[in-house]
Amino acid sequence: MTNRKEITAAIIIIGNEVLSGRTKDINTSTLAKWLNSLGIEVKEVRIIPDIETVIIETVNSLRKKFDYIFTTGGIGPTHDDITAESISKAFKLEYGFHKEAYSILETYYKPGEFNDGRQKMAKMPTTAKLILNPTSGAPGFYIQNVFCLPGVPSILQSMIGGLKNILIGGDPILSITISLRTVESNIAKSISEIQNKNQDVEIGSYPFFRAGKLGVSIVLRSSNKSKLDLCNLELLEFINSKKIEIVKDD
Amino acid sequence: MTNRKEITAAIIIIGNEVLSGRTKDINTSTLAKWLNSLGIEVKEVRIIPDIETVIIETVNSLRKKFDYIFTTGGIGPTHDDITAESISKAFKLEYGFHKEAYSILETYYKPGEFNDGRQKMAKMPTTAKLILNPTSGAPGFYIQNVFCLPGVPSILQSMIGGLKNILIGGDPILSITISLRTVESNIAKSISEIQNKNQDVEIGSYPFFRAGKLGVSIVLRSSNKSKLDLCNLELLEFINSKKIEIVKDD
Repeated sequence: MTNRKEITAAIIIIGNEVLSGRTKDINTSTLAKWLNSLGIEVKEVRIIPDIETVIIETVNSLRKKFDYIFTTGGIGPTHDDITAESISKAFKLEYGFHKEAYSILETYYKPGEFNDGRQKMAKMPTTAKLILNPTSGAPGFYIQNVFCLPGVPSILQSMIGGLKNILIGGDPILSITISLRTVESNIAKSISEIQNKNQDVEIGSYPFFRAGKLGVSIVLRSSNKSKLDLCNLELLEFINSKKIEIVKDD
Repeated sequence: MTNRKEITAAIIIIGNEVLSGRTKDINTSTLAKWLNSLGIEVKEVRIIPDIETVIIETVNSLRKKFDYIFTTGGIGPTHDDITAESISKAFKLEYGFHKEAYSILETYYKPGEFNDGRQKMAKMPTTAKLILNPTSGAPGFYIQNVFCLPGVPSILQSMIGGLKNILIGGDPILSITISLRTVESNIAKSISEIQNKNQDVEIGSYPFFRAGKLGVSIVLRSSNKSKLDLCNLELLEFINSKKIEIVKDD
């Protein structure tokens, strides 16, 4: 849409607990907002089960299509944590104790507490680079453009900061949200006209119910600030001309 | 894993607002739990942008792989709602006013209020079957094994009940969750042994932080009640033998 080279990413959420509906995925939102701030756009998310062949196939198909791949989940100590071994197979790399990861974990746990389960968390592609974990010791890792993070949201959030200098982003994607007291069908035609005139801005329209009342949020997104501002002006002009109430966002 | 014929589904979440991180997807969880209760297992979820070629390609690739496909989002009145037209193209079917949908919407709105935007919601594959919408009038639709639902969670939730008699499910997938005051690495080996002895039960292990304390939820899933109960007994025996505290779920 814009002239800039797009830097793209895909997210692979690995976990039966998300597919069964037991756990609601919030890592996508965390990763997407953070990546947007680095100028990287998430183009696809896949949620897949803890099945080795599916993980291998998904990683190998997506890593060729997008600049960066982020996986979440499956790097803990239990039998259903098979991400590290699957990634090793996807890249045809040796799966075994990663020296640096082993040493980090050995230091992290008290003497005598570095048991089998915990040692498993040091197993990964032996040549992987580590993603440090300031919360609970066990590191994530990356191979080429595939970054493997844990599934527990608070731990994932504490780890991504360390990747900022490793990822090469583009211009940050800027956004403006205006929430209106109206329904989509009343503004659809005009918003569509504004979209046609502003091809470098992506305009989204999202109905909401809040405090028992209907409304629509209009979201403008672009990496070009002046084009975004121009589009925003046109939108505000339309809103004023139709005397539509603007709702303050919470 | 079990002997029964698996009935499978995939979910396609269509919407830039989820990929940008602005909106957290909760429809996956709603659909997955409801499908599980009908004996249908969600095997994959894809979150994709509002781009026609991507929608067509994704729908056409997944509808051959799974028994049922559910799409959410993109069937409203605005310019970024392109699901109905994309689905028409995916199936090479005529896109236009659906007589029954048009008549439902014409009746739903007051005279003079059935404007262009609202009329757009009656456009879909003209031969589609409708999914009625008790909340806000505009119906969803289905073609063969592809069911198209709206993105607004409360509206989606009100519509799925009507599909119960159309979908052919299998044995419902039963589950038991036991939450423990322990950490995964302390139980990983034993849980792995219990998993090996109980191949017809899928055992998941999920760490949590609640009220400042660490714990692990063990989730047993199977469509075979007696095998599920047997596995549960073995798990409880292990928990008792190790004197691990069971945490009451909220």
